[in-house]
Amino acid sequence: MNGAEALIRTAVASGVEVCFANPGTTEMHLVAALDAAPGMRAVLGLFEGVVTGAADGYARMAGKPALTLTHLGPGFANGIANLHNARRANSPVVNVIGDQATWHLAADAPLTSDIESLAKPVSIWVRKVKTPAEVGPAMAEAIAASQRAPGGVATLIVPADCAWGEAPGAARPVAIEAASPARGEAIDAAARALRAGEPALILLGGSALSKRGSLAAARIAAKCGARVMFVTFPARVERGAGMPAFQKFPYFPEQGVELLGSVRQLVLAGATEPVAFFGYPNTPSRLTPAGCRISVLAKPEEDAAGALEALASALGAGAIEGELAARASLAPATGKLTPETLGRTLAALQPAGAVVVDEAATSGAPWYAFAGGAPPHTYLGLTGGAIGQGLPNAVGAAIACPDRRVIALQADGSGMYTLQSLWTAARESLDLKTIICANRMYRILKVELARADISQPGPAARALTDLGKPNLDWVSLARGMGVPGERAETAEDFAAALGRAFAERGPFLVEAVL
Amino acid sequence: MNGAEALIRTAVASGVEVCFANPGTTEMHLVAALDAAPGMRAVLGLFEGVVTGAADGYARMAGKPALTLTHLGPGFANGIANLHNARRANSPVVNVIGDQATWHLAADAPLTSDIESLAKPVSIWVRKVKTPAEVGPAMAEAIAASQRAPGGVATLIVPADCAWGEAPGAARPVAIEAASPARGEAIDAAARALRAGEPALILLGGSALSKRGSLAAARIAAKCGARVMFVTFPARVERGAGMPAFQKFPYFPEQGVELLGSVRQLVLAGATEPVAFFGYPNTPSRLTPAGCRISVLAKPEEDAAGALEALASALGAGAIEGELAARASLAPATGKLTPETLGRTLAALQPAGAVVVDEAATSGAPWYAFAGGAPPHTYLGLTGGAIGQGLPNAVGAAIACPDRRVIALQADGSGMYTLQSLWTAARESLDLKTIICANRMYRILKVELARADISQPGPAARALTDLGKPNLDWVSLARGMGVPGERAETAEDFAAALGRAFAERGPFLVEAVL
Repeated sequence: MNGAEALIRTAVASGVEVCFANPGTTEMHLVAALDAAPGMRAVLGLFEGVVTGAADGYARMAGKPALTLTHLGPGFANGIANLHNARRANSPVVNVIGDQATWHLAADAPLTSDIESLAKPVSIWVRKVKTPAEVGPAMAEAIAASQRAPGGVATLIVPADCAWGEAPGAARPVAIEAASPARGEAIDAAARALRAGEPALILLGGSALSKRGSLAAARIAAKCGARVMFVTFPARVERGAGMPAFQKFPYFPEQGVELLGSVRQLVLAGATEPVAFFGYPNTPSRLTPAGCRISVLAKPEEDAAGALEALASALGAGAIEGELAARASLAPATGKLTPETLGRTLAALQPAGAVVVDEAATSGAPWYAFAGGAPPHTYLGLTGGAIGQGLPNAVGAAIACPDRRVIALQADGSGMYTLQSLWTAARESLDLKTIICANRMYRILKVELARADISQPGPAARALTDLGKPNLDWVSLARGMGVPGERAETAEDFAAALGRAFAERGPFLVEAVL
Repeated sequence: MNGAEALIRTAVASGVEVCFANPGTTEMHLVAALDAAPGMRAVLGLFEGVVTGAADGYARMAGKPALTLTHLGPGFANGIANLHNARRANSPVVNVIGDQATWHLAADAPLTSDIESLAKPVSIWVRKVKTPAEVGPAMAEAIAASQRAPGGVATLIVPADCAWGEAPGAARPVAIEAASPARGEAIDAAARALRAGEPALILLGGSALSKRGSLAAARIAAKCGARVMFVTFPARVERGAGMPAFQKFPYFPEQGVELLGSVRQLVLAGATEPVAFFGYPNTPSRLTPAGCRISVLAKPEEDAAGALEALASALGAGAIEGELAARASLAPATGKLTPETLGRTLAALQPAGAVVVDEAATSGAPWYAFAGGAPPHTYLGLTGGAIGQGLPNAVGAAIACPDRRVIALQADGSGMYTLQSLWTAARESLDLKTIICANRMYRILKVELARADISQPGPAARALTDLGKPNLDWVSLARGMGVPGERAETAEDFAAALGRAFAERGPFLVEAVL
């Protein structure tokens, strides 16, 4: 067998089932190996940002990595933005990148570039093999590295001659280390902090965002009166009826400062200390005031859910299921379509067990609030702030969870970065409903212009923040990629369109004009 | 004035007129400065690959840089692939990338990443300023660096506090060094090589691709019997009636080896020694046989056109205008639409003075051959092999040359990488006609699979190389971005569609189903 087949067989033996791909010439033997070695599903993305974003969404839902297969430096580079999000989500993702044959690198052929320099900023593990014999073992190591707590992006660069050359065979899987268990002293310290009776906030991130983590945090909160919040951009949380309705830590730094101003005990469970998303002239980097004590219950690489459960026990916190959010009796809204009426309507109509991928930016906050009482659902957030995550994440989630309805709640501006995702949804017949929040501007940038004291933007500032002239026609864009859809201009239209979308399986797009 | 305004004013003073942009929060003061400082046109791309590819196309046509303005690491990363092409084209491009405020970097906020590691592989010059006072001088240096022969990509990273902080003012332009003049000894050596009477090939690249260079090369060829070719992927050449009909050096290495097998004197004018685009098991990196002597008439950073003219004089080569390609009497083809009938029809109907951006891959070769006798036109090629260049390059070319017709001859597979370009063409009312060669597959990969001895691709290989299921509907995609278009299924359809396209100014798309 050649190196390529050793790679694929090693991945299959390590439990990897899906390869999101956009290959080129240097990956032809790896493509052929997907046929030679059974057990790996190959999914084509028409752009690498689709490939890497899908692998991130898959990992968040499957709890294990998919492969990405991309072409040399420039092809891989197209996937970097969504790998940045995967890195911030601590999603296990394994990139396989072809390269020029080892003996051909020195020729500096047109597509040659420094792939390692491109890969390092988004990877916890980067390796370039030099012989076919290394390929299988390196693949096994990459897969294990991606799953080492808290999880991350591993990148394996495979020169073409290492793929086509003879290899000894598949490598055995490398054992994956479990997350470090909760530390007794950290639990004791957090218990002391919460018993102090001072205003307290428990911030959940990483593995604390799991159902176990959230439920344990709710018990602690009920016992101690502490407030619980998710990090601003959680990778994945379980919410809706029967789960605690935690808010997300606020986005703007002055809001964070205000919120923390009254907090005296901050307990971090899988989260890191809150910092500003961006620096502004008169706001700090770190948002926690001097008078607030920080207790690290669990670091991102530790078992934060276990630590929360141990903390609940240490505090004698009882069960609280009865107190959790009941199914709210939400009715679809009527009238003008706004973020509020859109959010209320979607929350009212979303089916039980949905996976909602939220890249709706400024248009999505009302839905998040309403959906606290919607049927149980999984929420995936924009972890790294690199826009273009939503549609590919939804593709990956749908492939990981074929029995669940997936909803991409998507802003129009960010949706344009990776709109090619719609084609993969059509080809793979994914049960993926895309809702485009079409406000026809980069609204967040208008907010940021105002924050920068530019209250009267000039022609250039308007040209760079407005998406009109011409308006995007998302129904045509979807049709162009094989996805049916319709446009909604009122809340009633939107409810009717959602009704039709959820009535059948398969991809569908609703352009909600705000 | 703040650092942002100093930057824009410096750029304007240095002759820069256009800023292709997709900014984010850390670039808000730079956006405002585009309004505060007159003289810079701001052009929005809905994806950074559009922004950087447009800057490359603009530079090739304008002969000077545009700015790109992108957001931090992940936003910039979306533009890397087309900067790779710009790097291989030696196009002057100046990237301005915002970053976290200097004092906020240590907080490792979600969007923070190693921008320099991402920028270095595509840049000849990278600098990150640390104070507002540095911004203007650094901008002036970046602009000069991008234009230092043979030209390249310069990247300036501007932390937000350096943009909003008070700066002393605009910096004076930095003088641009002229390309090194032709070296007398190189001209003498090339003259000796060509006088030897052995089979000779003159390979034109870089500045030799100019009209002056091509005409001088034709005179030399007529005098000495040498063959002249362009490099495989020329950045920009002038061709058509009245210009020599040079072929491009072949793409596959065995073709290059065969061609060079009979050559005894290879003269490089602005080109580097031919190497294989990719390595294959039984082909070499370097294509020149041992018995062939290589004379470097001009290196890429030298004045290759001047060197060719000096060489022509040294050889006593006379004028040859009368012998150059006359306007061929091409008629549009009829019948089935194929690369041949498409190429013949376009060559017959393309208006005089067009700029043709060729990313048609396997579908474009017949047009190139036919168009040797078409009206004079400018040709822009896929220099770095990073697909997704064509549509953005055409946008940039149309902005650089508002009085010329621009034609994007575009493969469907690569067109999908940066299809957002169509929206910018609509917004800016560019006279840009896009022809999608819709063969509904990555045909080059099917060729490469066969070359890798995979003559019967399995389901995975087919899934990763076919673009059908579902077919892309480019007319709908274009409509979704405000560009009118139509589909052609026969050569007659195609000719009629081209007729309508060229009858009016403005963007138009023709999907040619092959």
